[in-house]
Amino acid sequence: MSIYNQQTKLTIGLFGFGVVGESLYKVLACTPTLNAQIKKVCIRHPHKKRNAPADLFTTDVALLLTDPEINVIIELIDDPVAAYYIVTTALSGGKAVVSANKKLIAENMQELIALQQQYNVPFLYEAACCASIPVIRNLEEYYDNELLQGISGIVNGSTNYILTKVTEERTSFITALQQAQTEGFAESDPSLDVNGIDAVNKLSILLTHAYGIIASPSDLLHTGIQNLDENDARFAAEKGYSIKLVATACKLQDGTIAAFVLPQFVGKTSQLATVRNEYNGVVIESSLADQQFFYGKGAGGFPTASAVLSDLSALHYNYRYEYKKLNYQQPASLSGDFYLKVCIRFKSIHQVPHKKFDIILGWSSNSHHCHVTGIIRFSNLAEGYWWKQPGVSVILYPGGIIDNYQAQNDHDDEYYDFVEQLAEVE
Amino acid sequence: MSIYNQQTKLTIGLFGFGVVGESLYKVLACTPTLNAQIKKVCIRHPHKKRNAPADLFTTDVALLLTDPEINVIIELIDDPVAAYYIVTTALSGGKAVVSANKKLIAENMQELIALQQQYNVPFLYEAACCASIPVIRNLEEYYDNELLQGISGIVNGSTNYILTKVTEERTSFITALQQAQTEGFAESDPSLDVNGIDAVNKLSILLTHAYGIIASPSDLLHTGIQNLDENDARFAAEKGYSIKLVATACKLQDGTIAAFVLPQFVGKTSQLATVRNEYNGVVIESSLADQQFFYGKGAGGFPTASAVLSDLSALHYNYRYEYKKLNYQQPASLSGDFYLKVCIRFKSIHQVPHKKFDIILGWSSNSHHCHVTGIIRFSNLAEGYWWKQPGVSVILYPGGIIDNYQAQNDHDDEYYDFVEQLAEVE
Repeated sequence: MSIYNQQTKLTIGLFGFGVVGESLYKVLACTPTLNAQIKKVCIRHPHKKRNAPADLFTTDVALLLTDPEINVIIELIDDPVAAYYIVTTALSGGKAVVSANKKLIAENMQELIALQQQYNVPFLYEAACCASIPVIRNLEEYYDNELLQGISGIVNGSTNYILTKVTEERTSFITALQQAQTEGFAESDPSLDVNGIDAVNKLSILLTHAYGIIASPSDLLHTGIQNLDENDARFAAEKGYSIKLVATACKLQDGTIAAFVLPQFVGKTSQLATVRNEYNGVVIESSLADQQFFYGKGAGGFPTASAVLSDLSALHYNYRYEYKKLNYQQPASLSGDFYLKVCIRFKSIHQVPHKKFDIILGWSSNSHHCHVTGIIRFSNLAEGYWWKQPGVSVILYPGGIIDNYQAQNDHDDEYYDFVEQLAEVE
Repeated sequence: MSIYNQQTKLTIGLFGFGVVGESLYKVLACTPTLNAQIKKVCIRHPHKKRNAPADLFTTDVALLLTDPEINVIIELIDDPVAAYYIVTTALSGGKAVVSANKKLIAENMQELIALQQQYNVPFLYEAACCASIPVIRNLEEYYDNELLQGISGIVNGSTNYILTKVTEERTSFITALQQAQTEGFAESDPSLDVNGIDAVNKLSILLTHAYGIIASPSDLLHTGIQNLDENDARFAAEKGYSIKLVATACKLQDGTIAAFVLPQFVGKTSQLATVRNEYNGVVIESSLADQQFFYGKGAGGFPTASAVLSDLSALHYNYRYEYKKLNYQQPASLSGDFYLKVCIRFKSIHQVPHKKFDIILGWSSNSHHCHVTGIIRFSNLAEGYWWKQPGVSVILYPGGIIDNYQAQNDHDDEYYDFVEQLAEVE
């Protein structure tokens, strides 16, 4: 049953009037054809100066959630606990909901899908992944088939800004982070960006729409750029690579899915290499269409508001995510049974459980640090998180997901050479 | 009223079994979740060997169009007259239609929209623009507001392949065209690619979905790469540019729309510069989301079939283009009242009506040809098509659309210098 159509006026209750909320307010004023109007805005701090009429604002959450005239709730706040209450209450009350809250959505996907079905209401969140890039909608509709091979996305603008400054301008990581904060690209808690939490939240959402997999972000292997340093940047430059933090999901030969967030070396011919500064970009591979690439601003007030606006527009034709891939006869599942070609940088060999590597392909060292390139089983990398300790970094090579690697029982000469010589360095 | 839903089996009558038709046939066999099956394929040549069971084929057009079980007609043939009959008859008969025929669609947009409304049936054609790139759907849904500033697209893979070979590998235009034909990127009539006809057909379709403008391709200023030569390639290289054939539509300050297909110089930092060989790419600018970029394969069997597949998937949720922008209170209209900064190459000054230029910004000449850079009113460029004569080329500069140029009544010294000296060259 259609609850909205083109003639239905969208009467909006908006939670949050930060940079995105205010942008949305401004934009709705200049898009009359959308037939949508903000009736009330619920804010936390009533005394803060706002660029909108005072009678638009309230601090009374219930006023919006119980107003029968309000048929759409837009949630753009920073507090995940309050956001959970607002979104679930609104859906249970039969109101359509639009949100940009990736953390809330990723961590509660199962329940939020159930609520949409139970109360037959749309819950749209295009802004939660890559802001202005319509990646969720395209995965849901355009790649609505079994032919999607993989996604590789630069989904966090803040870390991409930092990596761009570090690798192109040789800025230090610390300075680059400060610049990102000054420019307003960082989350209010920048550790969410830097440690890869924001990226893995987005990967979790992408997995649902790409492959019908519901996985808690904390169950997905991930790291950020917190352990990278200038040595990694120099090593990459020597090889002609840049370093990007990439959220990856791809189909293995047996149909299971590899998924993780890791820093990756990116070659000059990759589309991802063109994604600089605060921009986001997603490469989607399908067995039909080869590679496709979507690029745009992944953060900021207006780009995020633009995705919210598009969700509002979609409500007019009663659009909702169907989550069709969850109902496939053979829904996909995550795999730990594949191999990665990685570069590990470390200070002391004791930091690296080298026996876990299947093969050491090369290594180099100086008085400050060592780089070793090897192939390791994904499940071995996921064990213990030894590579998250200070002074150790892990970076994936281009094409570094190896599906059918023939694990070797015997280590070769390069391996013993490596172990022996590094022991001497100690 | 919904005529299809997820449970509805799509029973397909397919017209054409060329490279796209056969790709689609193969792909449907491996996407059972789509719940779609080809019942009959209508072909023109019954004796040609086909990679499918013989009883699938017929030459009887009416057999498909009158079969009550067939609820979707897919039209993938090369003959525009037959395609027109098939598509209009199928729509009038209440069948959903999917087509990839940009020429048919561009030239008959008004009538095809009317038929959809009259018979309440969907007509989808994502494959008609940029094949695998979901640009129509995104313009229709995601950019469903007044904030779309402009589109610049490399929409013809064949000419882009040729330009890539010529500018990067210094291949001659003739050799590059032959290579494109060998590789299968060229239309069956390559002049449609080379002369910009294919690109302007796509621009016409994009205009409808971007701005609600219905314009016949022949009414849109366009050219292809037919007049470019190695001198242009060298000139571009000297300036650090590449040359791309770009379909452009953008909003001017008064809300009217500039639209044309011209070769353009593209700087290294433009996303369009990354679109090489047979790929397509579209930059979409919105006043909210800044620049977005969509990139992918724009031709070929599987990429085109992938867009057709996505249209089939959309039929399951009764998706149809709403053509909402046609019904805006102030629908956009095309403008001739703006200026272009262009480079003209010519042999003799008599080929160039230099008085039509508002200003000459610079020029160079040698014994073989002259290049002149100037600013010209668009309506002056559209008059007479003197720049389509042999030996003359026109290339737009980056940022070369000038909205509010203050036309000068008096020509300056550079202009007289130019006219005088060129007259001497004669």
